[in-house]
Amino acid sequence: MRDVKTGEFDGGAAFADGDFCALADAKISIFDWGFTRSDATYDVATCWQGAFFRLDDHIDRFFASLAKLRLTIPHDRAELRAILHGCVRAGGLKDSYVAMVCTRGVPPRGVRDPRLATNRFYAYALPFVWIAPRDKQLAGIDLHISQRQRIASESVDPTVKNYHWLDMVQSLFDAYDQGRDTSCVVDASGHITEGPGFNVFMVKDGVVHTPDRGVLEGVSRRTAIELCRQLGLPLVVAPLSVQAMRQADEVFLTSSGGGILPIARLDGVALPHSPGGERAFPGPVSQRLYDAYWALHDDPRYRDEVAYG
Amino acid sequence: MRDVKTGEFDGGAAFADGDFCALADAKISIFDWGFTRSDATYDVATCWQGAFFRLDDHIDRFFASLAKLRLTIPHDRAELRAILHGCVRAGGLKDSYVAMVCTRGVPPRGVRDPRLATNRFYAYALPFVWIAPRDKQLAGIDLHISQRQRIASESVDPTVKNYHWLDMVQSLFDAYDQGRDTSCVVDASGHITEGPGFNVFMVKDGVVHTPDRGVLEGVSRRTAIELCRQLGLPLVVAPLSVQAMRQADEVFLTSSGGGILPIARLDGVALPHSPGGERAFPGPVSQRLYDAYWALHDDPRYRDEVAYG
Repeated sequence: MRDVKTGEFDGGAAFADGDFCALADAKISIFDWGFTRSDATYDVATCWQGAFFRLDDHIDRFFASLAKLRLTIPHDRAELRAILHGCVRAGGLKDSYVAMVCTRGVPPRGVRDPRLATNRFYAYALPFVWIAPRDKQLAGIDLHISQRQRIASESVDPTVKNYHWLDMVQSLFDAYDQGRDTSCVVDASGHITEGPGFNVFMVKDGVVHTPDRGVLEGVSRRTAIELCRQLGLPLVVAPLSVQAMRQADEVFLTSSGGGILPIARLDGVALPHSPGGERAFPGPVSQRLYDAYWALHDDPRYRDEVAYG
Repeated sequence: MRDVKTGEFDGGAAFADGDFCALADAKISIFDWGFTRSDATYDVATCWQGAFFRLDDHIDRFFASLAKLRLTIPHDRAELRAILHGCVRAGGLKDSYVAMVCTRGVPPRGVRDPRLATNRFYAYALPFVWIAPRDKQLAGIDLHISQRQRIASESVDPTVKNYHWLDMVQSLFDAYDQGRDTSCVVDASGHITEGPGFNVFMVKDGVVHTPDRGVLEGVSRRTAIELCRQLGLPLVVAPLSVQAMRQADEVFLTSSGGGILPIARLDGVALPHSPGGERAFPGPVSQRLYDAYWALHDDPRYRDEVAYG
């Protein structure tokens, strides 16, 4: 693996087939099971103002996901870290969305045994990706609560970060058709699960609630949970009904794509704290967590500085 | 779209980005939602001894799947047919597995609205792919009945041919680890659904059974159902329990990857009709359907001849 210079692939860079490359050259075979069977896992870390945030946690989860799917990559933790740093450096990015991806690969022709495929590893760094752009966050995100069902844990382990997203993509179509900004889906018993790229939280009478099952154990979700404990905010991690959610005082999403993202409306109905309403937006709990989340980015325990050339 | 000569890409050919190419050059961006969200549909037709079999039915289903996912391709039926014929011709193949694939594509940078992506179309022809190789079919396929659950219809519509297969890939690992040849999975109520690339049938006391829900409406499944009616074989299309399946006289799979594939063992236990057993293998019903299936390939209604140069 050669070294890469800062800005060598300006605007973003990828790592594929063992070397760094331009984003446009990062491609997989249409015969890779990562595509034809969505037999892949991935993780997304972020780099903010020149430093990765909680990179070790993302690397831990990525290796755990790999093990659960019986995938392997030809890199240890130190090499993986160097590749991710390399992508950010090569892209010349200070604020970046950084993905690591492993696919099953292509088994020998005529064979359907996944144990015989050589797994493939990819990584890339893009300019920071927000679940919703900043102007939309200020104007107030409108979340559609879809009746579509998230793929059940009994079929696909949601703690393995995966690309089985057709359910969420369909709910996004519904959301956009109705003029909403994003969506979340439910489980078979009608409880809230998650949305495309984020976990869901709500606040009622000063108590923070988030679903306990059927969801990705997001690193940003974990950060929010840890911050609730540090700040002494009462927290309930348990099944969350759609009805309870519609009665919320505050709703926010957690995602590497923006951290703590306050929601202003549910299916067009303003929450008690919404822009232009009587009560300040974001609501007090969301605001405290938002501030604490970004303050954590200065905490040396969570920072991993990129050495730009 | 230029014309291609017979054997121009010997051993198989693809169509990507509007033109024919070698299989090795058929790649998609790692940013295509077809990969990062498994937001894609596909279909697989077969070409046998120089003629497509039921190609119109596969094209019908592909266009139906596209509509259900709100995907579009820049080709009408006649052009699609010409591309598929072109792949077979360019690959110089007489017996071929022929796929057509559409992915969501890549939305504009920073936007998560799938309506704004330009959908992509791919096709390819490979040498005929069997669910199990011929020697394994003769030796007797051993089918693992997994307790893993197929992704529910409420999450992903199984009548849209899709790449959400992690559940089935995991069941394949189980099968191979136990020395079985392939696997099928169940639904949340424990009924048989389907396996990786095939539908499941069983025969008990002269009656043919196959599941009615939670499964791909396979073209080969339809062929088997139509043949049962033509041959006067009693047929029940209804939920099928694992217990009933284990009591079967005969079990067979249906797939474009081999048509009617008789099964010899379930989880290592020989069925009444199995190689080396007292009763002939395949069993009489499987054999009749097998013979009828291949005889249909001579029926001009279902044949679409490839014009090799």
